[in-house]
Amino acid sequence: MDAVDSLSRLASTIAARRAADPNESYVAKLHARGIGKIAQKLGEEAVETVIAALTEDRAALAGEAADLLFHLLVLLDAKGVPLGEVLAELERREGTSGIAEKARRTP
Amino acid sequence: MDAVDSLSRLASTIAARRAADPNESYVAKLHARGIGKIAQKLGEEAVETVIAALTEDRAALAGEAADLLFHLLVLLDAKGVPLGEVLAELERREGTSGIAEKARRTP
Amino acid sequence: MDAVDSLSRLASTIAARRAADPNESYVAKLHARGIGKIAQKLGEEAVETVIAALTEDRAALAGEAADLLFHLLVLLDAKGVPLGEVLAELERREGTSGIAEKARRTP
Amino acid sequence: MDAVDSLSRLASTIAARRAADPNESYVAKLHARGIGKIAQKLGEEAVETVIAALTEDRAALAGEAADLLFHLLVLLDAKGVPLGEVLAELERREGTSGIAEKARRTP
Repeated sequence: MDAVDSLSRLASTIAARRAADPNESYVAKLHARGIGKIAQKLGEEAVETVIAALTEDRAALAGEAADLLFHLLVLLDAKGVPLGEVLAELERREGTSGIAEKARRTP
Repeated sequence: MDAVDSLSRLASTIAARRAADPNESYVAKLHARGIGKIAQKLGEEAVETVIAALTEDRAALAGEAADLLFHLLVLLDAKGVPLGEVLAELERREGTSGIAEKARRTP
Repeated sequence: MDAVDSLSRLASTIAARRAADPNESYVAKLHARGIGKIAQKLGEEAVETVIAALTEDRAALAGEAADLLFHLLVLLDAKGVPLGEVLAELERREGTSGIAEKARRTP
Repeated sequence: MDAVDSLSRLASTIAARRAADPNESYVAKLHARGIGKIAQKLGEEAVETVIAALTEDRAALAGEAADLLFHLLVLLDAKGVPLGEVLAELERREGTSGIAEKARRTP
């Protein structure tokens, strides 16, 4: 599976839904309620992901992680931050060569 | 940016670092501290993402979103959930055709 | 207003409701759904408190803070931690004399 | 423990520290960093409370709950919301008679 392709497509779908009828689109409904509501949903999905990781099975965690990713894409779109910019930042920070890792990081 | 499968490559890098020396790898250090610590970091990065979306600029949000994604990948790896499984779940739920959207969703 | 008295009374009320009929008591319903659900509600109320502090007015923040306190009391009761134990820990850490403050604390 | 009004005394202490030297007071330091930082700390302590409830012992939960309460008081003070207003809201919503409970509540 091509990870970024499916995510990029989902990001495009979300952007397209943004201006839809709030009665027909969940994304449009979130937009209509404002950035605070979108941020709230992201926070709630993160809480559910934390709890699933500690108390539920792998399938439940996969489902919560999907919800978290979805709402992160909605939030990024709402703030005009392209997914590619986040991925570029990730690559810049972490590298993907498997060799180097940011020494500054501490848990 | 040619971002194709950059998340997948990062997931592989994280998996490879898991068994590294905790003194040399941030990922290995998180693993050594246990799933509770990894989940805590995910939660903290989500809080920072929420706050960046509400009070900071686009670059700050991109940075926090990158941190959130990174720790989500670490958590998924720690629980043995492949990234592909999460992306498949996302596609199953949301579709990427731009037409259908889950009617069950409500904000 | 006597802060701890009203909180202590609410804590007692919550403890009494714990064994009630889940169809008639919100507290009993949360208990029936388990500690993960109670913890999830606490986390969600914290997210709402954060967002209210950053984007809403004082009355909204007071309301969210009340919800957060309520669910903290439910969680403590569910885990068998008396409110007095938390307050004693608070006094031990912070003091209430207005003079000393824990030097170890850093933001 | 005579816990009567210990929270109120702590709230007064926090208010008094607000204008202290940020190099000498944790509360003043948080204030100097702004409302976003205070809200972030509240969110982080909530995450730690959730995780302690699910994976740690009662003493650890009491400690995290104390940290959460402390930062809630700092946030309320920073936004000019008196603790008494939150407690009044709690009483209004929940009652403390042990009889009535808001029927509107659903988990």
